[in-house]
Amino acid sequence: MMDQPLASRIGPTPLLDAAQLNADIEATARFGGTGNGGVSRLTLTPEDKAVRDWFVARASELGCSVTIDPIGNLFASYPGRNAALPAIMTGSHLDTQPGGGRYDGILGVLAGFAALRALKSSGLVTEHPLTVVNWTNEEGSRFSPAMFGSGVHAGAIALDEALAIRDQSGVSVGQALDSIGYRGSRSHTENPAAYVELHIEQGPVLEAEGIAIGAVTGVQGLRWFDVEIKGTESHAGSTPMANRRDALTAAARLILDVEAIGRAHAPGVLTVGRAGVFPNSRNVVPGRVSLQIDMRHPGKAGLEAMETALRQAVAGQTDSRIERIWAKKPVAFDPACIDAVRQAAADCGLSCRDIASGAGHDAAHLATLAPTAMIFIPSRDGLSHNEREYSSPRQCADGAEVLLRTLLKLDRRLA
Amino acid sequence: MMDQPLASRIGPTPLLDAAQLNADIEATARFGGTGNGGVSRLTLTPEDKAVRDWFVARASELGCSVTIDPIGNLFASYPGRNAALPAIMTGSHLDTQPGGGRYDGILGVLAGFAALRALKSSGLVTEHPLTVVNWTNEEGSRFSPAMFGSGVHAGAIALDEALAIRDQSGVSVGQALDSIGYRGSRSHTENPAAYVELHIEQGPVLEAEGIAIGAVTGVQGLRWFDVEIKGTESHAGSTPMANRRDALTAAARLILDVEAIGRAHAPGVLTVGRAGVFPNSRNVVPGRVSLQIDMRHPGKAGLEAMETALRQAVAGQTDSRIERIWAKKPVAFDPACIDAVRQAAADCGLSCRDIASGAGHDAAHLATLAPTAMIFIPSRDGLSHNEREYSSPRQCADGAEVLLRTLLKLDRRLA
Repeated sequence: MMDQPLASRIGPTPLLDAAQLNADIEATARFGGTGNGGVSRLTLTPEDKAVRDWFVARASELGCSVTIDPIGNLFASYPGRNAALPAIMTGSHLDTQPGGGRYDGILGVLAGFAALRALKSSGLVTEHPLTVVNWTNEEGSRFSPAMFGSGVHAGAIALDEALAIRDQSGVSVGQALDSIGYRGSRSHTENPAAYVELHIEQGPVLEAEGIAIGAVTGVQGLRWFDVEIKGTESHAGSTPMANRRDALTAAARLILDVEAIGRAHAPGVLTVGRAGVFPNSRNVVPGRVSLQIDMRHPGKAGLEAMETALRQAVAGQTDSRIERIWAKKPVAFDPACIDAVRQAAADCGLSCRDIASGAGHDAAHLATLAPTAMIFIPSRDGLSHNEREYSSPRQCADGAEVLLRTLLKLDRRLA
Repeated sequence: MMDQPLASRIGPTPLLDAAQLNADIEATARFGGTGNGGVSRLTLTPEDKAVRDWFVARASELGCSVTIDPIGNLFASYPGRNAALPAIMTGSHLDTQPGGGRYDGILGVLAGFAALRALKSSGLVTEHPLTVVNWTNEEGSRFSPAMFGSGVHAGAIALDEALAIRDQSGVSVGQALDSIGYRGSRSHTENPAAYVELHIEQGPVLEAEGIAIGAVTGVQGLRWFDVEIKGTESHAGSTPMANRRDALTAAARLILDVEAIGRAHAPGVLTVGRAGVFPNSRNVVPGRVSLQIDMRHPGKAGLEAMETALRQAVAGQTDSRIERIWAKKPVAFDPACIDAVRQAAADCGLSCRDIASGAGHDAAHLATLAPTAMIFIPSRDGLSHNEREYSSPRQCADGAEVLLRTLLKLDRRLA
């Protein structure tokens, strides 16, 4: 038996303690709880310290050793059979948006602990060590940019640069880490054997299709554009329709063009999320409109095609200009890791579909270091960054069970 | 000669002193001058007192008696041959918007004085007395509603109600009148034989067509609407195009419908001047959009047709509602008075076209009391309520000459 890989020795019966996972969700939701079912737990605040203390205590109970790196990422290391192998890593983040939910990020960390608990209680031992991680500042609502914890870990952002970032009241990341006692001294330099992150979808696709598990194929690339359309401000009463240069009607045409471009480039998405009208007075024909556009696509070619179409649409409007102000490349996850997720879902008898992540995740940074995948579960009404964010205890437990089995499959494949 | 009507005894040579009119424009522009060529002279302020003092002095120089009514309207009465006849009245207003121009309203008052000066210097005497009036608070930027000076005079607004209106700092109209010493004791109850008002167009039509004079046929009716369109707020990255209920794209369709309805109902105009997007964040699909719409048409049937079409367009958008929040009926000016303007322009060899006023004017109130018309001259770039408002000295003098000759024609017809 000892020579047979672990994953082949377990049947379809759930290994995971769903009730304990749910209790952990309830427990962590109290740190920064809003009273409306949501959580406000901005990174490196006293609330974040409290949940970090909970993380350390829980990790110790499970027999993990905990290390803290200089940007405050927490690594809970659980031993495997072969200490010479690099760890298989899982986790997510415990910080939230202001008025956020109790699942976004948190589920991924707690499911990591639930997986360790299942192994421990069933006496199963993996070949690789396992690491459960809590990344600092995934959300970016106190310190910008978002995801600098995993960014520093992956070398995408310099440590000194991240430590010097200040919040709106002038407090630096370094000061904030010191104030809660979570600035570690030693970087966690070993690359994991693989990284798998469980997360809520934060979108409507799985719920709409009645599917339990999303095997995340990657994180969409993103490009942000600012567009300005100029017209001529004039009196709404005394300017005949034929004499107008109305910036708002020009903007309306462009907004519909943007929607059509998005529809023509599925699975890409294209959104005008913000519009400013000047002077924005009922009886003045608008003289200027600014639009903020968000473009995402899982493939570089798709992004290029969308940007070309968008620029043509803008150029089709008289006196308009467009500027690309930010870009993030698409990230493709590891095919073998994605396949492990699909098979784990199948082993559990759960429906599963491939899905690209629309939002950014720490996993995108980890994908530069190790074979990586993510697992999504449905979000009610697609809501996230919202106190009404919800996934049922059943959905959370299903996701954690698939995470555990994915870790076991990777342990077998990579050993 | 004495039995022959005055108007038939004058030739095409200009009667008016164009240089003096221009000097008066320069002189009054100093009261509340902005330093950028504009004027900020809100009603019943110290700047307004200064220009009123100038009005009284100028009227006295010309041999007028000045009366002030209880809402602060100033009447400068100039004798005619027959004191038993009601006066023919002209004028406009000397108050401005904050950061307004030196022509809007002001030209109409100064042209009245220029007409009296021309009569006086040429020894011509009209049958009717002539009255030059300065109406209180045409602009409405300090005290709302606008045009309550002429409104009280015409009985459209009760005097007590107007006196009780307060500005943003809590000062009432009555207090403001007292503070500048321009609350009169006696209403000016005599209805004029006719009322003619010279004004800048505040629109682009005359300039675009290269026409010197607009014979104003009336003031458009106006209806204001508030529209709200609801969608579903969702994540711009994780909500596929097909799953969206984007309130902004729905609003864009409606904005284009509104433009098409306006174009289909010329000479009516229809404007979305203000738009609010919620939550107005680049990476959130908009969940709600509010629109403020301004509708104008010179005829009631036109307004009805436009409103019907607008309501149908709004009803065509899912989860939308429309509310009419204000309405003003169209005002048609007196055909004989309009014809006098046309003929006066022809006598001067000036091009002339009929035009409806898009903006409201005191003349709309006067039209309920007496045969009324207005004369427009071109506004550069159609600009008004703006420091860059401009009509050339030539255009101003042409307008004043047509005003004078219109008054003379009406004097002849009505005697």
